Amino acid sequence: MTNERPLILVSNDDGYRAQGLNELIGFLRTIADVVVLAPATPRSGSGCSITSSLPIKLVKDLQEPGVTRWICSGTPADCIKLALHVLFPERKPDLIVGGINHGDNSSVNAHYSGTVGVAIEGALKGIPSIAFSLCDHSPSADFMPLKPYIIAITRRVLEMGLPAGTCLNVNFPKAAEFKGIKVCRQTRGDWQDEFEALERKNGEKHFWMTGEYRNDEPESTDTDHWALDNGYVAITPTTVDMTAYSLMEMMQGWDFSAE
Amino acid sequence: MTNERPLILVSNDDGYRAQGLNELIGFLRTIADVVVLAPATPRSGSGCSITSSLPIKLVKDLQEPGVTRWICSGTPADCIKLALHVLFPERKPDLIVGGINHGDNSSVNAHYSGTVGVAIEGALKGIPSIAFSLCDHSPSADFMPLKPYIIAITRRVLEMGLPAGTCLNVNFPKAAEFKGIKVCRQTRGDWQDEFEALERKNGEKHFWMTGEYRNDEPESTDTDHWALDNGYVAITPTTVDMTAYSLMEMMQGWDFSAE
Repeated sequence: MTNERPLILVSNDDGYRAQGLNELIGFLRTIADVVVLAPATPRSGSGCSITSSLPIKLVKDLQEPGVTRWICSGTPADCIKLALHVLFPERKPDLIVGGINHGDNSSVNAHYSGTVGVAIEGALKGIPSIAFSLCDHSPSADFMPLKPYIIAITRRVLEMGLPAGTCLNVNFPKAAEFKGIKVCRQTRGDWQDEFEALERKNGEKHFWMTGEYRNDEPESTDTDHWALDNGYVAITPTTVDMTAYSLMEMMQGWDFSAE
Repeated sequence: MTNERPLILVSNDDGYRAQGLNELIGFLRTIADVVVLAPATPRSGSGCSITSSLPIKLVKDLQEPGVTRWICSGTPADCIKLALHVLFPERKPDLIVGGINHGDNSSVNAHYSGTVGVAIEGALKGIPSIAFSLCDHSPSADFMPLKPYIIAITRRVLEMGLPAGTCLNVNFPKAAEFKGIKVCRQTRGDWQDEFEALERKNGEKHFWMTGEYRNDEPESTDTDHWALDNGYVAITPTTVDMTAYSLMEMMQGWDFSAE
């Protein structure tokens, strides 16, 4: 790193009003210049989705010393794409950070999370990226215990970099203190009983998403879910390469000729 | 497999009116009973996104011998979750299939594709799943050359199964004939020049997504993009486990203590 302050691009999926975003900006501005481009509205469950059939509206919000804020009508992944296209004409950001999400993004939630989508998109763009999430959905969750960890993890990634095509998915348990940090793998699990049915008086059938998470390997101690259940900060190194290499090898012998 | 006909759940991201979906239903009904739950509107770029803040409306559409069609207001991943929750009270589907997408879902597009989202969601539910896409965005693309390949690949997966947590992302080049099938890995690449700016008379800044795909390893011959460029059907075995294992190992030695 040079003598310049690091430059960090921040986004989230709970929208620009979310407390988690604003706490994150407060933490990061102590060590870096921050540019924010966040969705205008809550976008939970956006994953890596993008807006290809509508234009995205971009608006400048507040400008304070060391922090410039923008808002757009797009998804979290759109925010990263648009920010890199428009907001950094000279110097690219040194780091991209998503969060702090109000809610758990460990295990399979990484696929649905717009906060992780921010980090995946950053990794696809070749910039070290981190998603931060707290296992507390409350709009007024207490983010202060996270501050020293977020600053330490951010500093370490600024210093060490990350391999091409990877990012970090960092989840914090809901706690006043943490036992430490575990570097772990994505837990195998899934959601159960995912819908609450409701029938309108006119007979229309509607379904609200709900559900219970099921950990399919509760005995494993190297997973992100185990770390969170046991009071540790879970860092799950994450890759954008979804190739199933062992299946790729297995399938080389498959016969696909028509019968 | 038993003497029963296989049961296949089908969805897509171009919406229930798309020709690619209807061609796929026509191909699959020759070998299986088919239940369709597709989005009411085009949902390109949905990735694995889900609808958590609004109810999803479910409507029954046509019923023909061997094919039952439903439509919902959700995303492709919602379609799979909702179908498994509501439409299969007794026998679960033997296979889940997304497509046929109008457009390429190889390489990094797998992250943005709702068609691949269908297969990822299927894999998360523990059911063998396949996404089919044709590298032709035309609404009236010619899907007939795909028919024997789709039937052969589907039959093979019904017969062999797929390992837990994996699915197949299958892409077809735009061609009247194919040279054969390549089982390959996800190409490293990215999108460039992703936005077309437009300023309204009132000064509002809007951006339409566009862009050029850049292959970062054009010399590699084991990638899905190489296969497509060279006239082959590309099967990319895909995993829902996004853990970056080599980075996980590397990071075990990192010191995260605050300075």
